[in-house]
Amino acid sequence: MSVTAPRGFRAAGVAAGLKSSGARDVALVVNDGPDAVAAGVFTANRVKAAPVLWSQQVLRTGLVRAVVLNSGGANACTGAPGFQDTHATAEHAAAALSGSADGGPEVGAGEVAICSTGLIGERLPMQRLLPGVAAAVAGLAADGGLAAAEAIMTTDTRSKTTVVAGTGWTVGGMAKGAGMLAPALATMLCVVTTDAVAGPAMLDEALREACRVSFDRVDSDGCLSTNDTVLLLASGASGIAPSQAELTAAVTEACRDLARQLVADAEGASKEVAIEVVGAAGEDDAVEVGRSVARNNLVKTALFGNDPNWGRILAAVGTTGAAFEPDDIDVAVNGIWVCRSGAAAEDRAKVDLSGRQVAIRIDLHAGSAEATIWTNDLSHAYVHENSAYST
Amino acid sequence: MSVTAPRGFRAAGVAAGLKSSGARDVALVVNDGPDAVAAGVFTANRVKAAPVLWSQQVLRTGLVRAVVLNSGGANACTGAPGFQDTHATAEHAAAALSGSADGGPEVGAGEVAICSTGLIGERLPMQRLLPGVAAAVAGLAADGGLAAAEAIMTTDTRSKTTVVAGTGWTVGGMAKGAGMLAPALATMLCVVTTDAVAGPAMLDEALREACRVSFDRVDSDGCLSTNDTVLLLASGASGIAPSQAELTAAVTEACRDLARQLVADAEGASKEVAIEVVGAAGEDDAVEVGRSVARNNLVKTALFGNDPNWGRILAAVGTTGAAFEPDDIDVAVNGIWVCRSGAAAEDRAKVDLSGRQVAIRIDLHAGSAEATIWTNDLSHAYVHENSAYST
Repeated sequence: MSVTAPRGFRAAGVAAGLKSSGARDVALVVNDGPDAVAAGVFTANRVKAAPVLWSQQVLRTGLVRAVVLNSGGANACTGAPGFQDTHATAEHAAAALSGSADGGPEVGAGEVAICSTGLIGERLPMQRLLPGVAAAVAGLAADGGLAAAEAIMTTDTRSKTTVVAGTGWTVGGMAKGAGMLAPALATMLCVVTTDAVAGPAMLDEALREACRVSFDRVDSDGCLSTNDTVLLLASGASGIAPSQAELTAAVTEACRDLARQLVADAEGASKEVAIEVVGAAGEDDAVEVGRSVARNNLVKTALFGNDPNWGRILAAVGTTGAAFEPDDIDVAVNGIWVCRSGAAAEDRAKVDLSGRQVAIRIDLHAGSAEATIWTNDLSHAYVHENSAYST
Repeated sequence: MSVTAPRGFRAAGVAAGLKSSGARDVALVVNDGPDAVAAGVFTANRVKAAPVLWSQQVLRTGLVRAVVLNSGGANACTGAPGFQDTHATAEHAAAALSGSADGGPEVGAGEVAICSTGLIGERLPMQRLLPGVAAAVAGLAADGGLAAAEAIMTTDTRSKTTVVAGTGWTVGGMAKGAGMLAPALATMLCVVTTDAVAGPAMLDEALREACRVSFDRVDSDGCLSTNDTVLLLASGASGIAPSQAELTAAVTEACRDLARQLVADAEGASKEVAIEVVGAAGEDDAVEVGRSVARNNLVKTALFGNDPNWGRILAAVGTTGAAFEPDDIDVAVNGIWVCRSGAAAEDRAKVDLSGRQVAIRIDLHAGSAEATIWTNDLSHAYVHENSAYST
């Protein structure tokens, strides 16, 4: 049930005509409380879309009553007019929510976060978006989570939702994007909700730790979006206050589940690749090595060609600053140790790459830290989809 | 005439059976002097092929009498046995050259540099390579430069050679690779020769500056090879000693010419893209921004699709640490300023991307430094070629 699985939340997803396909393109998530606590993590790209700049301001208060999300346009690189469009959207949503007959609280525009995704550099059609927001307010429902998850899809072939059960409280979530939080393919948007009782600092800590080991470990194509946003909203409706560790664990599980769904549905991918780096001197080294391999186009095209080309993997490892000796490195592809001590070992012909799941294990023999990075292959379909997206 | 254009050099290119196609695969360049001064620049990859480790030792003396180059195998990630193979190749070449009836000087193995290119992770077939080296010695000729340039080709569709005239002295060169020195696609090998009189320090300075603004500004696919090598050999046969500035300028011109030929022949590319970054606070900023755009797969696939997607360009700029304000950036594609002050400007439909040459100009409005990075698009042919290369 997505973001409406926890108590205290309603959601909606409507078709406002932003997408030429006529599919749902405006989503709304409302926190009916009693609390309206929130935390957010945003793209590290210095070119930030108007909704990111807006929502960063909103999140500064730690108070969010509603999130409006639209597909069909990123509202990025649109200058001051684009920011005014975001502001107007928040005002419109706040007014509609305050005037609705559902008995909810008065909502100010400064309590409405905005997320957008789609083509960069074009203004949003406000004459369609604002009626869409009104329709979403009218359509809010306690089981609206799935419709909302559909409305934020762009090149996604299926919606991504999750539910994680705590003890008497719940975490729910939805996400879109064929990519990742830090480096991002198209744009990644994610809203996670919970009915746990938690303050803003606790939410912030839970969300940052969850992102660090989930979305930040996904690197589909190394591209960092202008719009990436992950929000965590808490209603407190369960009346139960978990510990920091319990909350962090549940939010992390939700984010990991959504991150895996993003990789599984990445644009044009024919492989889901887990790059496990072990024996690293530190976790940062493991992440750096994993990310370098994940971003290497020669490794990615080899995987598309079902070729266990470990030489390209070693070449990618060699570009990092991680602690290792080249002659110590072992590499396994789908369980076959094709490289031992930096040179050929088991017969590469033994590697079965016919399936969709690929596991690459790299042992640096430099320590005991480890990390896993998730990525995809580089396929004809990726080139096709991304060469035709905006024209 | 490639590396044999300057006086004092002979070369050969023979077919030793390393390539299954039966094409030339072993090249030899010999410096007959009177001088045998040399400088070298090698891959920054920490996983270095055996011939790179060997040639780095050879170059430490600043004295190189011959270079053996082979395609058909990189001899990278081959451990101690691979290094012994390289050593044996140098010994074999030195013995053959010393025993030949051409009146040349005695040659020691420590004066023979080795370069290899091809698949990583497999031993070279020494039973073919060593007879090939002997055949190359027997075939040395003052007009052998073109045959040598052919023998180092791998996925290159044509050989790359250059000649630059000084005043009474000459610079010649050959290169292979569909990529670059710093980040490298497959492997880039380059030998530049001159009959100018120059000491090792002068050669070293000329070569480093030349590489900095030529091969180091090419970024076809962001991948850094284990084998990249650029060598500069001086015979002094002209008897003329140019100034440092004159030598640097001529070597730079030769390297730039070869670098452009590499980009023009990059694997599967349908576009040659010049990314000019102007208005940067410093040259390092300009290079960082240009390289970030050059490596962005979303930008590269858009160019393949003839789509002037400036939003993706801005998103790539935004991932750098360069000095700029997002709202100041201008972007032109093939002369049309599609983005001004970080937002849409001229109609993108005006951009003509039907040709092979693409010029992207990015004005950061943060200073007066500039740099140009050369790259390619990301095409179906790139995916095809690199998904099938080793299998």
